[in-house]
Amino acid sequence: MKYWNKRLKNMSEYIPGEQPENLETYIKLNTNENPFPPSKVVLEAIREACNESLRRYPNPTNIAVRELFARENGFGAENVFLGNGSDEIFNLIFRGFADPGSTAVFSYPSYSLYYTFSEANGIKYDKVDLDENLDLRLDEFLKKDYSLAIISNPNNPTGKGCDRRQVVEFLKKFKGLLVIDEAYVDFYGETLIDLVKEYDNVIITRSFSKSYSLAGLRVGLAVAHEDIIKGFLKLKDSYNVDRLAEAGALAALRDKKGFTYNIGMLRSNKEYLEERLEDLGFTIVPSKANFLLVRHGTVSPKTIYEELKERKILVRYFSGPVQSEYIRITVGTMMEIKTLMKELTPIVSA
Amino acid sequence: MKYWNKRLKNMSEYIPGEQPENLETYIKLNTNENPFPPSKVVLEAIREACNESLRRYPNPTNIAVRELFARENGFGAENVFLGNGSDEIFNLIFRGFADPGSTAVFSYPSYSLYYTFSEANGIKYDKVDLDENLDLRLDEFLKKDYSLAIISNPNNPTGKGCDRRQVVEFLKKFKGLLVIDEAYVDFYGETLIDLVKEYDNVIITRSFSKSYSLAGLRVGLAVAHEDIIKGFLKLKDSYNVDRLAEAGALAALRDKKGFTYNIGMLRSNKEYLEERLEDLGFTIVPSKANFLLVRHGTVSPKTIYEELKERKILVRYFSGPVQSEYIRITVGTMMEIKTLMKELTPIVSA
Repeated sequence: MKYWNKRLKNMSEYIPGEQPENLETYIKLNTNENPFPPSKVVLEAIREACNESLRRYPNPTNIAVRELFARENGFGAENVFLGNGSDEIFNLIFRGFADPGSTAVFSYPSYSLYYTFSEANGIKYDKVDLDENLDLRLDEFLKKDYSLAIISNPNNPTGKGCDRRQVVEFLKKFKGLLVIDEAYVDFYGETLIDLVKEYDNVIITRSFSKSYSLAGLRVGLAVAHEDIIKGFLKLKDSYNVDRLAEAGALAALRDKKGFTYNIGMLRSNKEYLEERLEDLGFTIVPSKANFLLVRHGTVSPKTIYEELKERKILVRYFSGPVQSEYIRITVGTMMEIKTLMKELTPIVSA
Repeated sequence: MKYWNKRLKNMSEYIPGEQPENLETYIKLNTNENPFPPSKVVLEAIREACNESLRRYPNPTNIAVRELFARENGFGAENVFLGNGSDEIFNLIFRGFADPGSTAVFSYPSYSLYYTFSEANGIKYDKVDLDENLDLRLDEFLKKDYSLAIISNPNNPTGKGCDRRQVVEFLKKFKGLLVIDEAYVDFYGETLIDLVKEYDNVIITRSFSKSYSLAGLRVGLAVAHEDIIKGFLKLKDSYNVDRLAEAGALAALRDKKGFTYNIGMLRSNKEYLEERLEDLGFTIVPSKANFLLVRHGTVSPKTIYEELKERKILVRYFSGPVQSEYIRITVGTMMEIKTLMKELTPIVSA
């Protein structure tokens, strides 16, 4: 690895959720994708955008989507940024808003990409363990002069939401930048987006991958004070979001009916999954997202993961303290849930 | 800009080519977009990929496109990387393959994004002026211990190709990483891609924006030693290229007929444009790309740029030494060229 620089050599690799080669033969409940297709209206809008104009560069500021999202959420376009998935937004945050050598703080467990990005940018970090109820311990986030903190609302992999009062108390004292990852907020959680109006050090991130069923299109949003948005625009690649992704995002924001329908189906399937897992002796962490973190009274999570995989069902098993005591199951279609139950029953009843 | 880090504060902004609000009313010959639409086969393939599967994340390694390009060019997939436009590839090169504090070297004038990326990553850089014929002076690239050098084949904004023997001589002595930007190579130039087989410090970059008329889709390629490709894969965001971009790139590589037709039309229009410009008293830098760097005997480039803009035709005018003596004109459709000539004639005959 002769030409790798120091940071590339030192960073650990981020491992995305398993994507087996013969994907189609698996029931995939491991990467929190939405089990329902994108709405027809959205697919049609993208197909229409797939025309002669693809020869032209996209609008470099993606102003149409930013204006629409801003208007619907009580902001101005200057408070909204569009990224190539929220991954790109996190990437830009680490590159533009924390100085190399400074220290960031994250909860553990949370999205492991944060650790990878810190390492890739020469930023140190502390991990603060969740408390015994798997809730954030924001008091610990104040113990040092952290340049950057990231929390998720709701959190991944726990599914638990943030306590608004606790976050507000924290913000009264915190001097660094607080990023609140709301990738899963549309499913159940209560958004903290309005905090951007009061605090110039809050960035809210959103994703079109989950609640809009558009993981394959790569669109994410950030909402923040306009100085921060200016920074994103300065640092990003000129044409970071392509024409089709922009057309899809615009149509998705407009299609209220499709969105409501999707979320409604998801919630009802989630309730069904919860009930059936409880019947089988699982304990479920109360989830505000489209996934459940669960453990079984007698059978180990690793065994459940491996046995299910053999039966062509993928769920997420994490290594490392705390999270290795659980498996994470994405809410699927009714048929997927029924198959899961059929295969899971003998595994946990043995 | 309270929360910007030092690098974000210090970097200068990259200014992409003008995209006026009321774009449709302009003839746009300023950003080297291909004047012809993407082939119908490619558009159809993208529309077909716009289906239920968009709910799923893309393949994180984009293996299908990499395998196809590799096979057609005598490499293995392990030598090919796919990016969200070649902009992302340059971005990753600066972040992963040059240490902060080291010095890079570029020609001047060349793609000004290189300077921006250096600043964003704490990398110093020297600019080596082109010689009096607007050719590279690679001997100057050997005068320091540079970590990274970037040249373009053909160069932008000159359109001149690289001298293969000169590059090979240079590589025999150069210890850093040499990136050869071949965004425009498909139009006329002779590729240097085979140098990757001999030198483990060469990265060739390609773009689907120009010769495939897919600037709006954002796809670029890098070809290099497998250790370098491993570095790209480690550093990139998990799902950097979306499903539709991947489908479009795959179809574009397969559609030889559409590609040949597009390039043929482009070349013939370019010859026509050259002839007509010469008739009007322009001197043309010999170009191997889809644009011409030109100057007029008596009328200043700034005047030509401004007068054309008033007449709703955009060409590229650069500030700064050498390049401000020219304007750069992208080869358009026959109708665009004829309108350009009609408007240009009175400007330079006054």
